[in-house]
Amino acid sequence: MAAGRKDGRGEVVTVALDAMGGDGGPEVAVAGAARLSTEDRPVKVLLVGEPDRIDAVLAEHRHDPAWLQVVPAGPAIAMDEDPRLVLDERPDASINVACRLVAEGEAEAVVSAGHTGATILSASRAFSRLPGVRRAALAAVHPTEQRHGPHRDPFALMLDVGATLEATAEDLVAFAVMGSAYARVVSDNEQPRVALLSNGSEANKGTRAIKEAHRRLAAMPGIAFHGNVEGLDIPRGTVDVVVCDGFLGNVVLKMLEGVGEVFADIAKDAYARRFLWRVGLTMLSTGLHQLRRLTDWKQYGGAPLLGLDHVVIKAHGRSNPRAIRNAIKVAAKAVRGDLVGQITAGMAQAHGPAPEA
Amino acid sequence: MAAGRKDGRGEVVTVALDAMGGDGGPEVAVAGAARLSTEDRPVKVLLVGEPDRIDAVLAEHRHDPAWLQVVPAGPAIAMDEDPRLVLDERPDASINVACRLVAEGEAEAVVSAGHTGATILSASRAFSRLPGVRRAALAAVHPTEQRHGPHRDPFALMLDVGATLEATAEDLVAFAVMGSAYARVVSDNEQPRVALLSNGSEANKGTRAIKEAHRRLAAMPGIAFHGNVEGLDIPRGTVDVVVCDGFLGNVVLKMLEGVGEVFADIAKDAYARRFLWRVGLTMLSTGLHQLRRLTDWKQYGGAPLLGLDHVVIKAHGRSNPRAIRNAIKVAAKAVRGDLVGQITAGMAQAHGPAPEA
Repeated sequence: MAAGRKDGRGEVVTVALDAMGGDGGPEVAVAGAARLSTEDRPVKVLLVGEPDRIDAVLAEHRHDPAWLQVVPAGPAIAMDEDPRLVLDERPDASINVACRLVAEGEAEAVVSAGHTGATILSASRAFSRLPGVRRAALAAVHPTEQRHGPHRDPFALMLDVGATLEATAEDLVAFAVMGSAYARVVSDNEQPRVALLSNGSEANKGTRAIKEAHRRLAAMPGIAFHGNVEGLDIPRGTVDVVVCDGFLGNVVLKMLEGVGEVFADIAKDAYARRFLWRVGLTMLSTGLHQLRRLTDWKQYGGAPLLGLDHVVIKAHGRSNPRAIRNAIKVAAKAVRGDLVGQITAGMAQAHGPAPEA
Repeated sequence: MAAGRKDGRGEVVTVALDAMGGDGGPEVAVAGAARLSTEDRPVKVLLVGEPDRIDAVLAEHRHDPAWLQVVPAGPAIAMDEDPRLVLDERPDASINVACRLVAEGEAEAVVSAGHTGATILSASRAFSRLPGVRRAALAAVHPTEQRHGPHRDPFALMLDVGATLEATAEDLVAFAVMGSAYARVVSDNEQPRVALLSNGSEANKGTRAIKEAHRRLAAMPGIAFHGNVEGLDIPRGTVDVVVCDGFLGNVVLKMLEGVGEVFADIAKDAYARRFLWRVGLTMLSTGLHQLRRLTDWKQYGGAPLLGLDHVVIKAHGRSNPRAIRNAIKVAAKAVRGDLVGQITAGMAQAHGPAPEA
């Protein structure tokens, strides 16, 4: 399996896109794939969903049919459905078909902007966890003041943000390894700095799980472990990869989103009410855009689900076509860079040399 | 004891101020008390610390000596000291003397801008936990978009923010009761809406402790329980009191602080670099101030330590004299409103009627 992915390095990558998932439905997902198909370095995309609806969108967007292939499936799992109750009864749900295509070798990565819980559950059933990984983690990027890696990216990675609510020390160590591998492969960051999110920078701060994970990471080769960071360090961007349990990551990212919304409300209100403010806001639009960028983590489409033996990218439900296109490109890059092999190697190192080494 | 506090309702309240604690030392703490002494409804303040230094500050500030009394004590616990190691060896540390004065009935509340851990530990040793309270909680206010209570306060209360790292369901229920009582007494909010901070608004979202606390709070009379709120709801201010464990509260509040700092950095940078931005910023200063207010939770001086049988207010280390004055006023209001009695009554209700009822 890993060999199959390695063969794909530099060659054409095939991505299974859940064409039905996301708030915008096929109109947005298919438009994103259509856009990518006309670009310089395209990716083969399987458009998984209801053929009539997919074809209707394709008819309205410029695209290169050589890079797109429709694979019939049913509707997406709706946002108000509980995937634990409905996923098994709906084998033809678009996310289930997309994951199955990858499991059967028809594609090398799955991308979905649909129901997050359904994506995690469907992928967890279709794929296997990598050796040493007890729990998968969903990672997300958030904008930061400091820049990261050779491309000077204005964002950092945080994981877990919702797949594993309560994480043990072992889970946190695995998240650090997986986040490191992802930053290396997708952001070309050779030595990503990794830290545990805690209530103080000292090694003795945090829950029992965090203190134990700190001890293990500090002794581990192959990880640029920075120690603990605090809440302050999230918007600053002190490190490249922030590790926490899924409960904390969820609350923190949603709060960043909330701060952005409140700022936008205030700016809108100011604009409506006062002339001087209006002039000021116009003059400041670049600055305000920069301020807002810091809290608007949604614009970075792709959140990888890490720890499984295939690449899974969860795009935000409110993705626009550009975010979908970005998510497909990220998935292809993860395949080309052998993300799964990198995580496997990192986990082996975390657990000491294998017996035959 | 509780009777003693009730007698104080409407009468003069005496507050023991740790005059040595805080980043600004006696220069700031004593200046805050001096300012309050000249106002309409003063509070009797015991200035606890090194008399020479206190007198030197008093000599430079207008004050009414009738409301101020110096009580000799040693220096504060320094920010880089571990209170668990040094507190017992320093009985004359200003925070220890201030707490002792309250325990001995010489004052009714303690206020300190000093070392947070030292304040919590010193108070926990000098005072008793209220019946039914297993762990104390430190509460803090944070600015919100929505307003709260009859005074339309632009902030909400969050607890715990650092006293109890890992909270059980029982602890979270106690925090809800204590936060409710504090909002009633200090913000005059008759029916404060209380919620648990979780990773989703549904009752089945959250850690095991949160789900169990949800179940108990939903069945409890005397609490306006709103259910769960998410990270988004913190800056919005969906409820009046947000309940979480101290680890989560610490990370969340520090992140809000960090967002504010990053915004200030960007604004400064913009100001330095571009003329148009500079003009825009000047025009927008009120608006930016309002934006910044939303993340600058430090300006609201007083964070109560709840669950003990005396009133303890922890002011922020970086308090200015005005924040110290506010913290003393908040302490006096909590005494006059019988905060301790209110929490005691709430906890009794939480645990069902007492045997003799």
